[in-house]
Amino acid sequence: MNTFGTLFRLTEFGESHGPALGGVIDGMPSGVEIEVERIQHQVNRRRPGQSAIVTARDEKDRVEILSGVFDGRTTGTPIGFIVRNGDQHSNDYENLRDVCRPSHADFTYSRKYGIRDHRGGGRSSARETVSRVVGGAIAMEALRTRGVEIYAYTSSVGQISLPDGFAEVLDDVAVIDTNAVRCPDASVAARMEEFIKGVKGRGDTVGGVVTCVITGLPAGLGQPVFDKLNVRLAAAMMSINAAKGFEIGMGFAGCSRLGSEMNDQWIIDSDGRVCTITNNSGGIQGGISNGMPVVMRVAFKPVATLLQETVGINPDGDKVTVRPKGRHDPCVLPRAVPVVESMAAMTVLDAILLDRATRW
Amino acid sequence: MNTFGTLFRLTEFGESHGPALGGVIDGMPSGVEIEVERIQHQVNRRRPGQSAIVTARDEKDRVEILSGVFDGRTTGTPIGFIVRNGDQHSNDYENLRDVCRPSHADFTYSRKYGIRDHRGGGRSSARETVSRVVGGAIAMEALRTRGVEIYAYTSSVGQISLPDGFAEVLDDVAVIDTNAVRCPDASVAARMEEFIKGVKGRGDTVGGVVTCVITGLPAGLGQPVFDKLNVRLAAAMMSINAAKGFEIGMGFAGCSRLGSEMNDQWIIDSDGRVCTITNNSGGIQGGISNGMPVVMRVAFKPVATLLQETVGINPDGDKVTVRPKGRHDPCVLPRAVPVVESMAAMTVLDAILLDRATRW
Amino acid sequence: MNTFGTLFRLTEFGESHGPALGGVIDGMPSGVEIEVERIQHQVNRRRPGQSAIVTARDEKDRVEILSGVFDGRTTGTPIGFIVRNGDQHSNDYENLRDVCRPSHADFTYSRKYGIRDHRGGGRSSARETVSRVVGGAIAMEALRTRGVEIYAYTSSVGQISLPDGFAEVLDDVAVIDTNAVRCPDASVAARMEEFIKGVKGRGDTVGGVVTCVITGLPAGLGQPVFDKLNVRLAAAMMSINAAKGFEIGMGFAGCSRLGSEMNDQWIIDSDGRVCTITNNSGGIQGGISNGMPVVMRVAFKPVATLLQETVGINPDGDKVTVRPKGRHDPCVLPRAVPVVESMAAMTVLDAILLDRATRW
Amino acid sequence: MNTFGTLFRLTEFGESHGPALGGVIDGMPSGVEIEVERIQHQVNRRRPGQSAIVTARDEKDRVEILSGVFDGRTTGTPIGFIVRNGDQHSNDYENLRDVCRPSHADFTYSRKYGIRDHRGGGRSSARETVSRVVGGAIAMEALRTRGVEIYAYTSSVGQISLPDGFAEVLDDVAVIDTNAVRCPDASVAARMEEFIKGVKGRGDTVGGVVTCVITGLPAGLGQPVFDKLNVRLAAAMMSINAAKGFEIGMGFAGCSRLGSEMNDQWIIDSDGRVCTITNNSGGIQGGISNGMPVVMRVAFKPVATLLQETVGINPDGDKVTVRPKGRHDPCVLPRAVPVVESMAAMTVLDAILLDRATRW
Repeated sequence: MNTFGTLFRLTEFGESHGPALGGVIDGMPSGVEIEVERIQHQVNRRRPGQSAIVTARDEKDRVEILSGVFDGRTTGTPIGFIVRNGDQHSNDYENLRDVCRPSHADFTYSRKYGIRDHRGGGRSSARETVSRVVGGAIAMEALRTRGVEIYAYTSSVGQISLPDGFAEVLDDVAVIDTNAVRCPDASVAARMEEFIKGVKGRGDTVGGVVTCVITGLPAGLGQPVFDKLNVRLAAAMMSINAAKGFEIGMGFAGCSRLGSEMNDQWIIDSDGRVCTITNNSGGIQGGISNGMPVVMRVAFKPVATLLQETVGINPDGDKVTVRPKGRHDPCVLPRAVPVVESMAAMTVLDAILLDRATRW
Repeated sequence: MNTFGTLFRLTEFGESHGPALGGVIDGMPSGVEIEVERIQHQVNRRRPGQSAIVTARDEKDRVEILSGVFDGRTTGTPIGFIVRNGDQHSNDYENLRDVCRPSHADFTYSRKYGIRDHRGGGRSSARETVSRVVGGAIAMEALRTRGVEIYAYTSSVGQISLPDGFAEVLDDVAVIDTNAVRCPDASVAARMEEFIKGVKGRGDTVGGVVTCVITGLPAGLGQPVFDKLNVRLAAAMMSINAAKGFEIGMGFAGCSRLGSEMNDQWIIDSDGRVCTITNNSGGIQGGISNGMPVVMRVAFKPVATLLQETVGINPDGDKVTVRPKGRHDPCVLPRAVPVVESMAAMTVLDAILLDRATRW
Repeated sequence: MNTFGTLFRLTEFGESHGPALGGVIDGMPSGVEIEVERIQHQVNRRRPGQSAIVTARDEKDRVEILSGVFDGRTTGTPIGFIVRNGDQHSNDYENLRDVCRPSHADFTYSRKYGIRDHRGGGRSSARETVSRVVGGAIAMEALRTRGVEIYAYTSSVGQISLPDGFAEVLDDVAVIDTNAVRCPDASVAARMEEFIKGVKGRGDTVGGVVTCVITGLPAGLGQPVFDKLNVRLAAAMMSINAAKGFEIGMGFAGCSRLGSEMNDQWIIDSDGRVCTITNNSGGIQGGISNGMPVVMRVAFKPVATLLQETVGINPDGDKVTVRPKGRHDPCVLPRAVPVVESMAAMTVLDAILLDRATRW
Repeated sequence: MNTFGTLFRLTEFGESHGPALGGVIDGMPSGVEIEVERIQHQVNRRRPGQSAIVTARDEKDRVEILSGVFDGRTTGTPIGFIVRNGDQHSNDYENLRDVCRPSHADFTYSRKYGIRDHRGGGRSSARETVSRVVGGAIAMEALRTRGVEIYAYTSSVGQISLPDGFAEVLDDVAVIDTNAVRCPDASVAARMEEFIKGVKGRGDTVGGVVTCVITGLPAGLGQPVFDKLNVRLAAAMMSINAAKGFEIGMGFAGCSRLGSEMNDQWIIDSDGRVCTITNNSGGIQGGISNGMPVVMRVAFKPVATLLQETVGINPDGDKVTVRPKGRHDPCVLPRAVPVVESMAAMTVLDAILLDRATRW
């Protein structure tokens, strides 16, 4: 299914080289002011061609809103939108019509559907995430009126990571966009950038980790058992192309600890709010937000398309040499940052709407 | 919501110290033979009191099936079931009626609902997972007729892990239940067991990682974008109590690699089936199964309840000393194994049913 | 699927002659007082054997609540319940094991599932509605705290109907239960009762219409387009066994009128509330409640099982004589009344919860 | 929510006077040939301005498909589409900005959302149904490959109806479009047309009934209890603007009969297929198709907008005179016919996909 969410829902469509991508945002609360430029700004952050370390494809990506907004405010009716595809080089892919590249979705789509649009990866292209960014940016318009802030950044690329003890909740969010990698530590960012350039020069690719933080959430969001807030966030993040791992709070590192080291002790802050001294739980206990910042990490594998000769397979099971042309990211991390933020925004707005419904 | 799945669906209910837990399994295909003893066997594997390293609470946990099975076969109508609660020591919890323990769901449930059944953790207790095991065991009855095999095992406890290069796809599944920790390497298992006993002796707890493997899946399961098979599996696993991380295939480790190291190269096996030499993708590409084994890992944090004095908070924001009585696991891993298997089974059966629907 | 509702959801199970029926009510708001005797009272109104004109089967039907209620209040967690089957005469049905009776679900279930529990109609028996009544009665516990009142009554049996111009919104709801037919006009009720007795004496059955009224609803419930309040009510009512027609407001009669006759003119009542003089719309405009009483009608066909010899068909396509034993209603209307009320209650509570979520 | 269906799903958006309407069709089986002209043909049948008895608004309504179709076949990925709004006279509605017209959605939308696009009825306009027709026409592309045929026609307008005993299952479907009313009896059609012209001349409107027939369905579609095929069809039809009643088979008329008159007797046809002599059940028993034609009727109330002076109400509760300009249908029936067919097509395709999933 191509729908995300329960009450706030994005349903989307579109192939990499079709006429347009787009979607329908349903369940957006009414009366929220929409600043189209803020939405376009997020889309631009996802856009290829922003810097030397991302693909050169210049997509433009102007968002066209077709419904659901009247006199600058949401009406509660569905918001339809499209983003036209422009700068396509479909012929770059003609040699891939019948080829399944290694570690790509070519083979699995073929087995599932018996037919696929091979141009630019079709529906499996990360181009699809442009619709998520529109959905997330619109969700953010509602969230900002409630004091919820969401940001993500690159915390590791290959084996280059933020230093141990780096405070994940940032004092100054603006620092993220001061470098092309979107890493909040300038010197680490410089090393990452250098490394990516080297990888790109060899026609290779590299993976990494994005950290995402949500502040300003009230306690009480999420549902017990199957719709825990962490379940929804995990599903949101694992749905992004190339995501292979997810963790919340201390995550995998916490599982090697003792309970006596991991429990977050209570404290009452100066405003009389119940807080915890540490935040090993990552802001969620029993699947429900506790009012502390939600902190999570998403692992992205290296992009499968190398600008090197590789060996694919054709429908007859014969091996064929693949020489990808097209334009591809050596590292998805910088462009994944706004996608991660968008998925978080939609998840959290949905959780707020669901929570409202339960309060009698 | 307390429902899991789209076409194969488990809806469940029950508190730790109420009269019974149970649920409704909807969407089970008709005509499948049900062997009640196999279902009870899985429930027994989850049962407390099996060994010295799990809680001594003797729950018995007899599954009573109330509908949907006729003459030993499923009828396609919903399968209702209950598991009566027996051996409860509700008074052990009376002192916790108004206390929120650190890193527990007490505080968040109170904030969400304004009321909670404090006895034995109420709905937030891991006792709830008994219904998942029934659901998973019934899903398994259908899956076994299609050659799908699912197993999980403990791969790390604290800092004790299976050795590097351990082949995650096991030759002999029977080895898992030969020790109390459910770790497939006898000598590692012995060290884990020893370590857990030590932790238990100090009233402390410890976390770990469960690995889960699914073999025999056809290529083509899962959906593009939001309902990727890995998304469903992530949601399934992250919904289990104490789960804080999930990864598929190479997961977090893979994100520090280069694309040229990570791509899974094609090979045609002796039966003419398209396979890959490595399985860094963990059996899923573009969100859809490729026919290779699905391999994933779930991180469980240490149980929050220590048999030590800890400091909780009451509704007035005052700190209060908590002296847990009750009976608690020092390490959830051994009992989490059948729960992980169950969540995988329900997810995979649902994916098969969804896939059937798309084949015109 | 055996789930009804979006946020307030009943998932149910059970066959006519299995051990028990029951279900899970999910999404019930927390903190609502539950008076078990009120729930049992509604179940008793649906119970067979209440009078000479309904089946003599004495089911007892004690509701057992298994979770979700603590100290007499709902906790927000799912409410599991069962109703044990008692007085079964399964042998009465042994001759029907391989027989498909005319106008029954025997044939269609067989074609769909290849197997069915033939005893007492299995899952297709109206016995299933006992779970709906439990769900509806629990929904009513929440609705009564908001001033919403729901009642239904028999408005026609065969060709005997309430007189033209009968005010469907009743002054005194208590009158409904003063006769066995549950018709609010005593003299019409007497004729209906007489007629049903005659029909029963001939081993025949008869259909009729139930009218349902909801008062006290705020304006604004329901959603545009596919989830209009009337859509949800239609689905709710058409899901009841033997329901073959649904109409809201003037319904079919209104479609032969002119617009100038049908439009409901505005009026401001003495409390300054916007009302309409007539209520041809039945309280819903554009799919959304307008604050006037919601009025609808449900047509029930005559029960298919006659206590006469009829001709069925067996799996080989041979015609076989059917001599039903068992106990059957000559007219479902009186017992359908609480089922209609229950479906309305669940629909309306769900609409209220959904509406809360949209109010930012 | 603006989504219809479970596995085959239409999610739509759009206001009467916004830039475009459109939607996303998800779950369409892959590999189905799409003939765009057949889709456009159905859209044209819904288009205003086709004859003297429908509104003169010339909408053009070219369907633009944006994804999900490749080399003339569906790919299994979502089909996005838009229909641009053209010929709008938004100024005709300026005087209605703050006015709630009687029996319109103006008041209820305002109460629900606090804001509404008043131009041309905004989201509540029947213009929205253009997206349903696209969805239905695409569903029909799949259904035609399985021998399923769906047609609807006008069976009554005001008090003019098809004669008693008219065979609802038509020998020749082509007759429907031979007159402007889409009534399959030429002489009745002529009287209807005359009547509508008279009503139009007086600035009034009139309602009527559409009959819909589905042939070629296999036995076994639909689900027991809440998702009976008749439930889905009822929800589908009642979601159409101005629909106020729904019945299946004998419907309301059948509820005044005796069981002995209503039961459909079995017969084996010359191909050895199990059929029934009569079809009072309308092709559905126990909520599941029995292989006979599905026959249903939908009641449409007269359009609320009269081209007469009427009295509305403004936000201050003051009465105001309304003099509608715009262009409006005196009778929706002819244009409702393709909408009814479309809703039936989507419902039936969804039921087929759901049924496939249950067959193990």
